[in-house]
Amino acid sequence: MGEHDKTRVIFQPSGRRGEVVKGITILEASRQLGVDIETLCGGRRICGKCKVKVEDGFFEKYGIHSSKANAGAWQEEEGKFISPDKREQGYRLGCCAQVQGDLLVFVPEESRAGKQVVSKAARNIAIEWNPAIKYYYVEVAEPTFKEPTADLERILDELNHRYGLTSLDIDLFTLRNLPSQLRAGGWKATVAVWMDREIVGVFPGKTKDYYGLAVDVGTTTVAAYLCNLVTMEVIDTVSMMNPQCKYGEDVMSRISYHVMHQDGLQKMSDDIIQAIQDLVTQACEGTHPTENKGKNKKSEENKSITDDEDTPYLCLNPNDIMDMTIVGNTAMHHILLKLNPEHVGLAPFPPVLHKGLDIKARDLGIGINASAYVHVLPIEAGFVGADNVGVLIAEEPYKKDEMQLIIDIGTNGELVLGNKEKLISSSCATGPALEGAQLVFGMRAAPGAIERITIDPDTHEVDYKVIGRDAWKSYSKPDEMGAKGICGSGILDVLAELYRSGVILKSGRFNAKLKCKRLRKNCENNQPEFVIAWAEETSIGRDIVITQRDIRQIQLAKGALYAGCKLMMRRMGIERVDVVKIAGAFGTHVDREKALIMGLFPDCEMERIVSVGNAAGDGARAALLNRTKREEAEWVSGNVEYLELTLEKDFQQEFVEAMQIPHMNDEFPHLEGIVSDEVLHQK
Amino acid sequence: MGEHDKTRVIFQPSGRRGEVVKGITILEASRQLGVDIETLCGGRRICGKCKVKVEDGFFEKYGIHSSKANAGAWQEEEGKFISPDKREQGYRLGCCAQVQGDLLVFVPEESRAGKQVVSKAARNIAIEWNPAIKYYYVEVAEPTFKEPTADLERILDELNHRYGLTSLDIDLFTLRNLPSQLRAGGWKATVAVWMDREIVGVFPGKTKDYYGLAVDVGTTTVAAYLCNLVTMEVIDTVSMMNPQCKYGEDVMSRISYHVMHQDGLQKMSDDIIQAIQDLVTQACEGTHPTENKGKNKKSEENKSITDDEDTPYLCLNPNDIMDMTIVGNTAMHHILLKLNPEHVGLAPFPPVLHKGLDIKARDLGIGINASAYVHVLPIEAGFVGADNVGVLIAEEPYKKDEMQLIIDIGTNGELVLGNKEKLISSSCATGPALEGAQLVFGMRAAPGAIERITIDPDTHEVDYKVIGRDAWKSYSKPDEMGAKGICGSGILDVLAELYRSGVILKSGRFNAKLKCKRLRKNCENNQPEFVIAWAEETSIGRDIVITQRDIRQIQLAKGALYAGCKLMMRRMGIERVDVVKIAGAFGTHVDREKALIMGLFPDCEMERIVSVGNAAGDGARAALLNRTKREEAEWVSGNVEYLELTLEKDFQQEFVEAMQIPHMNDEFPHLEGIVSDEVLHQK
Repeated sequence: MGEHDKTRVIFQPSGRRGEVVKGITILEASRQLGVDIETLCGGRRICGKCKVKVEDGFFEKYGIHSSKANAGAWQEEEGKFISPDKREQGYRLGCCAQVQGDLLVFVPEESRAGKQVVSKAARNIAIEWNPAIKYYYVEVAEPTFKEPTADLERILDELNHRYGLTSLDIDLFTLRNLPSQLRAGGWKATVAVWMDREIVGVFPGKTKDYYGLAVDVGTTTVAAYLCNLVTMEVIDTVSMMNPQCKYGEDVMSRISYHVMHQDGLQKMSDDIIQAIQDLVTQACEGTHPTENKGKNKKSEENKSITDDEDTPYLCLNPNDIMDMTIVGNTAMHHILLKLNPEHVGLAPFPPVLHKGLDIKARDLGIGINASAYVHVLPIEAGFVGADNVGVLIAEEPYKKDEMQLIIDIGTNGELVLGNKEKLISSSCATGPALEGAQLVFGMRAAPGAIERITIDPDTHEVDYKVIGRDAWKSYSKPDEMGAKGICGSGILDVLAELYRSGVILKSGRFNAKLKCKRLRKNCENNQPEFVIAWAEETSIGRDIVITQRDIRQIQLAKGALYAGCKLMMRRMGIERVDVVKIAGAFGTHVDREKALIMGLFPDCEMERIVSVGNAAGDGARAALLNRTKREEAEWVSGNVEYLELTLEKDFQQEFVEAMQIPHMNDEFPHLEGIVSDEVLHQK
Repeated sequence: MGEHDKTRVIFQPSGRRGEVVKGITILEASRQLGVDIETLCGGRRICGKCKVKVEDGFFEKYGIHSSKANAGAWQEEEGKFISPDKREQGYRLGCCAQVQGDLLVFVPEESRAGKQVVSKAARNIAIEWNPAIKYYYVEVAEPTFKEPTADLERILDELNHRYGLTSLDIDLFTLRNLPSQLRAGGWKATVAVWMDREIVGVFPGKTKDYYGLAVDVGTTTVAAYLCNLVTMEVIDTVSMMNPQCKYGEDVMSRISYHVMHQDGLQKMSDDIIQAIQDLVTQACEGTHPTENKGKNKKSEENKSITDDEDTPYLCLNPNDIMDMTIVGNTAMHHILLKLNPEHVGLAPFPPVLHKGLDIKARDLGIGINASAYVHVLPIEAGFVGADNVGVLIAEEPYKKDEMQLIIDIGTNGELVLGNKEKLISSSCATGPALEGAQLVFGMRAAPGAIERITIDPDTHEVDYKVIGRDAWKSYSKPDEMGAKGICGSGILDVLAELYRSGVILKSGRFNAKLKCKRLRKNCENNQPEFVIAWAEETSIGRDIVITQRDIRQIQLAKGALYAGCKLMMRRMGIERVDVVKIAGAFGTHVDREKALIMGLFPDCEMERIVSVGNAAGDGARAALLNRTKREEAEWVSGNVEYLELTLEKDFQQEFVEAMQIPHMNDEFPHLEGIVSDEVLHQK
């Protein structure tokens, strides 16, 4: 088949791309390129699950022109599942649309098969109850000729008299409802007061529970925690891909998108606002009885796995959300608020502001209660944003004697080192390699992803397990494994095991002296590669390998991280850290032993390396449930010393040395007995 | 001609109505009914000045169905002056549209001939400079790697360091402009700070002058003062009819409109917001060079008479308006803010709130600077609203020893009595009679309106002058007078002179014993009437008369006012007031001697009866230029004792007695020598 019969397809948000033969369906193309699109009917055009969006226009980043016309003729069956306005937007069924030319295809969250296991579950951290919103019950007298005082002043007098609240303002939108609400409750009402300063709600009679949403805007994933502000219970955790992924996978490419496109900031901001709105809807719908959900298929599918069917239905709607907190890295923070992110991307990276903000949700275009505020947490410096402030107020290193190193690895790496005496932060460009992206067989943490691996030091035989199957390969038949690729946590396992078993050297290069059928040269580019899973064990029909370039990518990431830690320790004047905390989804999956073998961070007692989950989200939740955490955030954001790593003396030297596995010259006493002396002390 | 050949026409906002012969033009109908519609070409369809709007629908208040179809066929000439969308809205040329059925015709401000002389000019009252908005100049260092602090924090540090400002917030919309403004000025900027609390503007480099608008929302007229907040100078005074007039002439009929129509509040609120927006535009356009104005005919016509051609052009636009204050009576206040005005119209008349409000202009839909606040002054009680609070902070009776009686006569009458010891307020239903409405020949203060009159006690011959002509009738030929009707201030003259000359008795009845050709019986209803101007002296071709019913209307109004004053004095425990201040347009035209003769208010030394002009507007201006006046307003609104007159013992009795001219039993020592003993002491 000639070259002219092939065409390029790029899938977003995964970024998977490649050439496929013209004429196949988008669904088939997705399988060839390792993208998981949901299909219940197996491509028979009857389930309607494989909706995708064909983007129109020239995509500079990829150098392709994508257009609806390139996706073949509209099929009758599609009309059953796709409304005319969605069709207008470019929606198609993957099983109907044909690849007839270059395509950029967006796979919406609900069409993604084997949805990513997003570890954004709320942890059980201790938070003191002191929300920004508090409810107060009042009873007032009806106006008479003798006392014809206004509705508002009756309530203000009572709030002062019974609860000692003074000088309260009232939001205009609440004021407009005041007369009817007060009369509906027979002059008895519950008043929602924000920060002891402003009345943001009046409800007839007695109201007990009220709700808020803590939002963590990540570069890749947006997560939200619906909380009962009285019981502090997390009612639901919902999450979705950050729709901005279509403009670029990392913060720098989004900043570039803004610089290159006049409406770039507007579009990206609108997208993330819409995403937050969708999470609001989704969280609220999760509190409705299933019959209602049945009416809206989409919400049923998006239903969070943490949803508890035994919970009595609260039937909340967006208007019931009375408060919101938001964390996110500096770029996400700026784009959300429609603040020019350009300077954040240019040395010396000054943000538009540091301090936290209280903004009316309506001014951001977020549809929760009309009078509600959104509290956006402060940011530290440059790339160390409000998400890191969230981590800090959740972990509170500034209250401890012990020296903590907190590593938050997302698409970017953020580091904090310190204790109650001093805190230093910095950020390093780990890139997405540690999450499994950019590697030949890297993939998200979804079913079929290799997540654990061991390599026998003598035979160099590989054993592994995949997400979605409990049995390891050695206890399975080859065709039961259905491996698809390697996910973030698997990557570290692979490298640690390759190193421990002597397949790769301290330098990261394959051991040329090793004789093993798994270590081979790629027949196309003649580069060495190591086979993790043979084609028969996979669902993609090809050997899953790790290449020298893959290893180099991870070394670059881990080198940046390690060098950052090292330079921070030098600035702090310490030789050793007491505790290492790993935040982010990465932390929940990573094997601390393997991380230490790899030399992701300086040596530390194994038991004191802990995963703290989505600590940024926990921080958002803490600030939602306890207003003093907002003051703490303000304080901490102003009192963390920011270290710009690239300006540090010896940065390049440290970086290069740190690329070694685990590190050229450093001591790793806690690896003794875990890695053989021969390997550990190789020259 | 049969009855079936006549049809009803109502003109708004004047409320003039009557039956006309079918087939005449709307312009002709307007002349017959005494409505002034502009026409330069005399109805020859070439000037396009006589635009009117034909309303569609059933108008309950008048019991008529008006429709565009009733205005005859569209004429080709109309297309030159009326755009297709305006045509869709019902706009026609008065000279082209024919009356073919019942019509409700709205005459837009710009089509009104002999525009009302609205006395809303700003007085020269002493105001201390202390605006809510203040500008601060700052210079900050450019960010470096050593000091990569955020843009905002650089400015905050400088504001703190140079000006001692701390804990400042910043409005999101200003924050969004911050990075570009700061860089545009080379890290030098002027920062607008509201109430020492919030940054609401950042401008490159040095900016000296800044501007605000004080708005007085009257039931009939909306006036605005564009002020330089640095020099405190009033740059322009602009005014227009309150467009809500189409829903009813007084506050009660507008409240009813809300109660009867689900979208009534929304419509009336939108209308007044649009009116304020129009005044903003108009005030700004007044600062542009005439060439620009030429492009917009409308603004040229609306150009305020106070505009000074020698002023250098400021070329302001709405974005330059950084602050706004608003006063208005309770109903106007509530409707503007879209607060349910229903309860304000029902005993015991509780408003929704008393306190002043700071609202983002954008939340009200007012297009001035995106970050700007609008300060709405507080209201006292029931019908004594923010306009009266405006009067009080302009006049400051609470700082004086002397006992002041302040009378604000608009469509409603508001009274305040007191000194630094105590203040009492009340409101009375004077109705619009004192402004010349509801009388057979009543009209607005426009050219041709009789405004001064004398009647010879012996011959009962009448001399008068009209607005727009300096010479009195006795010095003019009859056909030079062109009288059209009697305006508010003329009304009092007429009554006072009729009484002083013995044409009417203390009771208000015509003196049946009098023989005089001017005193006659109406040939249709056989009721007595007195001829003020003979047909030959008028431009309407009919005798201008005052009827017994007219006199009764004015007696009712003046009785309500006098009884109110009297009961307030009783509550205060005083026999005499030291000063009478008359606020409102009425006050600037009224002859204090005539007012005293009429017994509009209790006796007072003639020199101490003063007109204070549009004191409500002055109060709005004071609050714009001096923020402490806002605190004063808050204090005074809470410390005025409200007297509900209708609940007072003897109210009816007092009211009836007060209808006498000047008052049945009261002493009027200051009338001795002005009114003959015989008249004054008649039984």
